[in-house]
Amino acid sequence: MDLMLFVAIGSLISLCFASFLFNKVRSSSEGTDRMKKIASAIRKGADAYLKRQYKGVAAFFGVVFLVLLGLSFFGYLNHFVPFAFLTGGFFSALSGFIGMKTATMANARTAAAAEKGLNKGLRVAFSAGAVMGFVVVGLGLLDLSIWYFFLRYWYTSVEVIKSENLMIQNITSNMLTFGMGASCMALFARVGGGIFTKAADVGADLVGKVEAGIPEDDPRNPAVIADNVGDNVGDVAGMGADLYESYVGSIVSTSALAVSAGLGMKGMAVPMLLAALGVIASIFGTFFVKTKENATQKNLLKSLRLGTYISAGVIAVSSYFVIKNLLPQYMGVFYAVIAGLISGVLIGFTTEFYTSDTYKPTKALSKTSETGSATVIIGGLSLGMSSTVWPVIIVGAAVLISFFACGGTVDNILGFNRGLYGIGVAAVGMLSTLGITLATDAYGPIADNAGGIAEMAEMGEEVRERTDALDSLGNTTAATGKGFAIGSAALTALALIAAYISEVKLLSPKTVFNLNITNPPVLVGLFIGAMIPFLFAALTMEAVGKAAQSIVLEVRRQFKSIAGLLEGTAEPDYGSCVDLCTRSSQKLMILPAILAVIVPIAVGLVLGVNGVAGFLAGTTITGFVLAVMMSNAGGAWDNAKKHIEAGNFGGKGSDCHKAAVVGDTVGDPFKDTSGPAINILIKLTSMVSIVFAGLTIAFHLL
Amino acid sequence: MDLMLFVAIGSLISLCFASFLFNKVRSSSEGTDRMKKIASAIRKGADAYLKRQYKGVAAFFGVVFLVLLGLSFFGYLNHFVPFAFLTGGFFSALSGFIGMKTATMANARTAAAAEKGLNKGLRVAFSAGAVMGFVVVGLGLLDLSIWYFFLRYWYTSVEVIKSENLMIQNITSNMLTFGMGASCMALFARVGGGIFTKAADVGADLVGKVEAGIPEDDPRNPAVIADNVGDNVGDVAGMGADLYESYVGSIVSTSALAVSAGLGMKGMAVPMLLAALGVIASIFGTFFVKTKENATQKNLLKSLRLGTYISAGVIAVSSYFVIKNLLPQYMGVFYAVIAGLISGVLIGFTTEFYTSDTYKPTKALSKTSETGSATVIIGGLSLGMSSTVWPVIIVGAAVLISFFACGGTVDNILGFNRGLYGIGVAAVGMLSTLGITLATDAYGPIADNAGGIAEMAEMGEEVRERTDALDSLGNTTAATGKGFAIGSAALTALALIAAYISEVKLLSPKTVFNLNITNPPVLVGLFIGAMIPFLFAALTMEAVGKAAQSIVLEVRRQFKSIAGLLEGTAEPDYGSCVDLCTRSSQKLMILPAILAVIVPIAVGLVLGVNGVAGFLAGTTITGFVLAVMMSNAGGAWDNAKKHIEAGNFGGKGSDCHKAAVVGDTVGDPFKDTSGPAINILIKLTSMVSIVFAGLTIAFHLL
Repeated sequence: MDLMLFVAIGSLISLCFASFLFNKVRSSSEGTDRMKKIASAIRKGADAYLKRQYKGVAAFFGVVFLVLLGLSFFGYLNHFVPFAFLTGGFFSALSGFIGMKTATMANARTAAAAEKGLNKGLRVAFSAGAVMGFVVVGLGLLDLSIWYFFLRYWYTSVEVIKSENLMIQNITSNMLTFGMGASCMALFARVGGGIFTKAADVGADLVGKVEAGIPEDDPRNPAVIADNVGDNVGDVAGMGADLYESYVGSIVSTSALAVSAGLGMKGMAVPMLLAALGVIASIFGTFFVKTKENATQKNLLKSLRLGTYISAGVIAVSSYFVIKNLLPQYMGVFYAVIAGLISGVLIGFTTEFYTSDTYKPTKALSKTSETGSATVIIGGLSLGMSSTVWPVIIVGAAVLISFFACGGTVDNILGFNRGLYGIGVAAVGMLSTLGITLATDAYGPIADNAGGIAEMAEMGEEVRERTDALDSLGNTTAATGKGFAIGSAALTALALIAAYISEVKLLSPKTVFNLNITNPPVLVGLFIGAMIPFLFAALTMEAVGKAAQSIVLEVRRQFKSIAGLLEGTAEPDYGSCVDLCTRSSQKLMILPAILAVIVPIAVGLVLGVNGVAGFLAGTTITGFVLAVMMSNAGGAWDNAKKHIEAGNFGGKGSDCHKAAVVGDTVGDPFKDTSGPAINILIKLTSMVSIVFAGLTIAFHLL
Repeated sequence: MDLMLFVAIGSLISLCFASFLFNKVRSSSEGTDRMKKIASAIRKGADAYLKRQYKGVAAFFGVVFLVLLGLSFFGYLNHFVPFAFLTGGFFSALSGFIGMKTATMANARTAAAAEKGLNKGLRVAFSAGAVMGFVVVGLGLLDLSIWYFFLRYWYTSVEVIKSENLMIQNITSNMLTFGMGASCMALFARVGGGIFTKAADVGADLVGKVEAGIPEDDPRNPAVIADNVGDNVGDVAGMGADLYESYVGSIVSTSALAVSAGLGMKGMAVPMLLAALGVIASIFGTFFVKTKENATQKNLLKSLRLGTYISAGVIAVSSYFVIKNLLPQYMGVFYAVIAGLISGVLIGFTTEFYTSDTYKPTKALSKTSETGSATVIIGGLSLGMSSTVWPVIIVGAAVLISFFACGGTVDNILGFNRGLYGIGVAAVGMLSTLGITLATDAYGPIADNAGGIAEMAEMGEEVRERTDALDSLGNTTAATGKGFAIGSAALTALALIAAYISEVKLLSPKTVFNLNITNPPVLVGLFIGAMIPFLFAALTMEAVGKAAQSIVLEVRRQFKSIAGLLEGTAEPDYGSCVDLCTRSSQKLMILPAILAVIVPIAVGLVLGVNGVAGFLAGTTITGFVLAVMMSNAGGAWDNAKKHIEAGNFGGKGSDCHKAAVVGDTVGDPFKDTSGPAINILIKLTSMVSIVFAGLTIAFHLL
């Protein structure tokens, strides 16, 4: 039997489980009419966003599709590439769509369930988050299976390829290109969502809280729904598309390395089977996520962690048997899986250490507020910069361990490729439990929305306390999730660089690589690669500023022109704010998106394949460090502000609080726009380079 | 005749010219008794700083000297290394010492001369700056000549080496190691000075201006002298030591590459002769720096630029004849010189574009102050990040042009080394006019001090206007100088990486390099290298915060305990603030300094020579981008504040101004501490790696 059938089965199990959870969540009560009305407004806003986003994305995909079609017509690309590109984008978009639909369906239900008890609230929010997790995993495996079986049929029956190795190479090389579609979609979801959510947040606060003097989450504020929509748009859909792409990318790039590593068909199947096993392990883990009614935040966190650890344990044990069975002579592959699993957990820990106010760094950051906002900024930046040390060491150790454990050698090309395969397996290992890790992450914004609805619908004090407990936990899991996303992105990007080199060798066996770091095209590629994440961060931060400005103007306009709005007798036009956020976020992300696609192509045309490899390495290493720095600085500023709001250093309204708010405002685009967008950037540039490898080989200056 | 005699002659000319200028400046009047008294206080403070710093540095050098002695005893180092290390440190320290002595002697004299006219003020300040420039150049060439003649004698008469190539390699390899001494000293001068100046600045402002309500530069403020001392300490001595080290490093590393490039003795001599020519060219250029009495700021800038351009022109023309004469078959070396000269000028232009308020970026940054300090911070960070694009492209183009112009080829090892030699020559070309470029840079803080003295001594309105014109120009030249410093540091670091590889091959010809970027030790080295500049920036920023805090406490103490201080009847204890700044800056820089020395050694012991090469490349590329970003963001924040103070967006005291002050305060450690310190870091790590190459070859894990 074809081993790949297991992958298809894993995909179906994952999707069935997701649909089971979806129906379970939907069957619970949505609460009072007031709650339903608020939830419906958020839903309407999210729909407006999706509609507009998909329009813009469709145009972008249409143009790129035509370009790819043209290139494939002239023979620079395989003829399946344009279609693979479309399916990658389609499934990524579908993951985001379902995730957002579920999240906006579950928010009021979580609030209603929290009325009955903490555990009930947790179960609803977590189940909704799990829908997202299992949809991402299921659709990822589905896309892989469909293409695998189609291409296998094609190369055995239509364009017959007799050599098994050559067939595997052709299959994986085609599958790699749908990663570019997924990456592009992820970029739109993550950057667009990131700009949307922060523009709405800042805009709502500036006019509502500061100018009109109405409280946060007040339904009279025209931007309040946009703000709530933003949580879903940025943190649910964006994160989902990001990890969909890492997930698929790590699996396919590792499979693509199997042939050059001399591991053949079985080597190709291992990463996919690990992913399929991960589905079962994650489902198993979800049953351990529950808590007592009188649970503390610590208990809640323990419960979420328990689920994740159990899933990781199941994978660790079962992967041993899979590898023992398929690659009995290469048990080092098993250690690569373990290295990936453990480093994912460790990066999560360091993120928590630097961003949670239960530890020293964030507490010390709160204290810097005593000498004003400038010292808060300096403190947060240096905290973020310091926080890059451990993630770099952890990823470095994972790279070395997985390389050498898989029998990687430096002076022998087969051994070298085997080691690179090991690095890819580590990335797959880290992402294998994505079903449940994404669930613990996507649950956060749902709980956050539930809290907002509880506030707006004036539910009891007890309910607020419960949703607050869930929400506050969500901040910790979000930080952990961000660390996990960037760690897996780095390993995936490394596997993709190796896959790029394989791809060039497949397309043009005569190409002589000189990837020596002192080779000028490599060196200049490294320089340009190191600069691009900075430029990308700059453009996305500026975009947030501009979009927020347009929201400020719109909210002011509504306050002036709609009579009775501030008295509560007339309703604001929520849709216009949502539409404005959507339009400006879609418009402002075009430049960064085009850059991410154009720059690797331009580097290839000028510097050739060696320059591209240097460029990708430069983007990956500097992007990793910069993204960790921005995410952690942003998280720490947010929690330092919360620490002060909890009554330390004078509490809410004090001078310290005002200084901390400046840090938080700077941190918002850091952690929710620029930092996460760099995750996608480092993978998208690799994907683009792989797809356009044929063009680079045909035309290059150096 | 030995060509190197020209270098010795160049050195003597440079030192004679410096001493001529020194005497000329000293012979001008120091003004009234009040001016003399203030200048003497600044001088006393600077002496206190130097005394303390040299004590700390002596201890550090003593320890490292003993370690090197031990290593050379066990055969891991050449026996000259410990002594070369000491001389490198000694001459670097001497450059800083003389530069600071001159600057603190010239400040009051500049103010006094400005009383007579703008041109007279300019001539005094610029001549004093030129003393620094020519001392740095002269001592650098002196150190080179002394070691060259000594080693040549040694290897022809004592430890006889018959092969000329082997002798050149041994000579240059020994000379390379005094670069490490210069780098260590530069690190202390730059980081220590950077912490000092910003701690004094922030401390003086926080207590004096904010708490006690006395104006800036008021003699009643105990920290005011420390603030003025800081300008000299950070911008004169720090910049001088930094560029001394780039200058010597670029020359020696290029000479070291001559043998492997197959260019022999003449190839070794060319970089040194270019430097010697640069002395003449720079002296010639200084005579064109003068202006009319009714000159505008634009005329002033033009006059300074004219001097620099004329020097560059002289070098361009004369280097043609030198190369035509010595390496007639390799005229490409000439184009490398030109590439270096032009790229230095271009980087200066981009720095000015991003940081001067006559251009759009800084004007736009001023406008962000309308929505508060958070948007100023976001705006400044993204400006700094965007500003990295052009410098990266310029350096990249210089690398490619100089590599290929010198006949660099990728598939032939001799051609490859010739190309790397070309990159080194570009660095030498960029730095050849250092005498005058450093003069235009060091003149800034002297004019700044002169303005402070004019203010404190209550000289006329007209004098203030003139010193203000000089000072304001100093900000532009300082920004240009910083761009120039970082650009030359990047090229020098690249030459040093190539020199590192040559050094390893010399020490252990059997070493097999695999510098492929996908080789895991290289890759992990790149990751760690990319992280270190961030860590370094974090540590230095934190140090400024801590040191400033201690100044705040001391100034408060003096205001309380010294009766009549605020009434002007008693004198504050300036020395204690200076001493405190000195002590805390020396204490707080130990950790970053040790890190810069320990990390490359640790990387070598774990990852081996390939890992070290990756590490150096990672530090260079990310360090370059981060340093440009921090310097330019800091410069733009400073000038955005000045733009508002000039009456835009509400002017001084407005809400916009307050927001801009936050940006400026964050920018202070960015541009004057962390950014410049990274310059040194990227060279010091290379130097340390070269010196400890023998240890790495003997002991390494991978």
